[in-house]
Amino acid sequence: MLKKDERIDDLLADQTMQIIQSPTVFSFSIDAVLLADFASAPKTRGKILDLCSGNGVIPLLLSQRSAVPITGVELQARLYDMACRSIKLNDVAEQIKMIHGDLKEMPSYFKNDKFDLVTVNPPYFKTDNKKHQNANDYLTIARHEIYCTLEEVIQSCSKLVKSGGKVAMVHRPSRFVDIVSLFRQYKIEPKRIQFVYPKEGKEANILLIEGIRDGSPDLKFLSPLYTFDQKGNYTKELEGILYGRKN
Amino acid sequence: MLKKDERIDDLLADQTMQIIQSPTVFSFSIDAVLLADFASAPKTRGKILDLCSGNGVIPLLLSQRSAVPITGVELQARLYDMACRSIKLNDVAEQIKMIHGDLKEMPSYFKNDKFDLVTVNPPYFKTDNKKHQNANDYLTIARHEIYCTLEEVIQSCSKLVKSGGKVAMVHRPSRFVDIVSLFRQYKIEPKRIQFVYPKEGKEANILLIEGIRDGSPDLKFLSPLYTFDQKGNYTKELEGILYGRKN
Repeated sequence: MLKKDERIDDLLADQTMQIIQSPTVFSFSIDAVLLADFASAPKTRGKILDLCSGNGVIPLLLSQRSAVPITGVELQARLYDMACRSIKLNDVAEQIKMIHGDLKEMPSYFKNDKFDLVTVNPPYFKTDNKKHQNANDYLTIARHEIYCTLEEVIQSCSKLVKSGGKVAMVHRPSRFVDIVSLFRQYKIEPKRIQFVYPKEGKEANILLIEGIRDGSPDLKFLSPLYTFDQKGNYTKELEGILYGRKN
Repeated sequence: MLKKDERIDDLLADQTMQIIQSPTVFSFSIDAVLLADFASAPKTRGKILDLCSGNGVIPLLLSQRSAVPITGVELQARLYDMACRSIKLNDVAEQIKMIHGDLKEMPSYFKNDKFDLVTVNPPYFKTDNKKHQNANDYLTIARHEIYCTLEEVIQSCSKLVKSGGKVAMVHRPSRFVDIVSLFRQYKIEPKRIQFVYPKEGKEANILLIEGIRDGSPDLKFLSPLYTFDQKGNYTKELEGILYGRKN
């Protein structure tokens, strides 16, 4: 089941699910774990779409706290394939389907079939840089806006979510103004925002944001999360999320 | 020097400056103290403008850490008068001038005379409510968007600040998306944001934001502030600001 350079990791330390990863191709980040924890997932009704799924980490995590159908979309064939094998490995093929495709094509693919929640952990970095324009290595595509810009991601989310449905995204705080402006432009009203700080006294390095399609303005800033305490250990709150002890 | 219902309070507990207040007319809030502390005040060169000055709390606070000329603008005659008397009381009339006027008229009043820093603690609450349209009591005007909307405030700031100068505002987090959208619309690029939380585990209730006129996008979210600790006492950080011990 494993290809060269791949390994099987625990999805969360105290849980039984596992995930196929590869340090040279794709390993999930803390950002994905935080987004899966942060998003308001429907429990028993509706359905979820995850864009930029990578090796399927967010669909796998969401399946632990939601019983609804989850669809993941991944552009890169190698990552799509890893996700499909992780779904089989965890025996969750009835709940999670993967699509090998471009998020920009999903609105025409799904047509009027819309989702209650759309999650996305998109590429974070702008690429004005010509040297990235033709790059095709896995990590570069996952990290840089080569095949999709932030605007294309948000536009696709807006078309794929139901009116009244939610869009949850993880990104860098430096792109915050762009994100909230584009959310509004595409009719996703920001409702819940949480910042993650590496430790007390440092600037935020992760942004979690959720909006509601066609929602009314009423934004809440949740209590911040800290990754590490002053001794350099994970904070209890973060450990609870990473180890899957929270629920 | 004092009118009926007025009293003289310490501006900050450990400092010598004082301020004339009135519980029925206007008493400064923690928000003003936080804004005066948060804003990037020029120390020895340039000049500062404070809009919606009320009883002059922000000019008085800023004069403790800046030597540059400070102008305050207040629409309400009674509050303007209190501010003028507090300036005399503290013997800072050489540094601080008050203008009795409408912030919307300040761009044409000052013309090409622009500021290095514009601070503003504007009214927080929208008034769709007809009953407020003709209200003229002091507190209602200070708290509700009766004589100026958020957009008018930000537009005036944009016209009054130099290119490369700073605009610092305190507001409610619920208006955050409006604020950053309007900042961008009026060419004030958000650069520093700090949220204040009443205590750990609660949602943010105060937003501090500073932008640069014609600045490039590069937004930092500062480490959050907490007002109270778990025992209900001021946190050390907040106490340092409120008592003027910080510098």
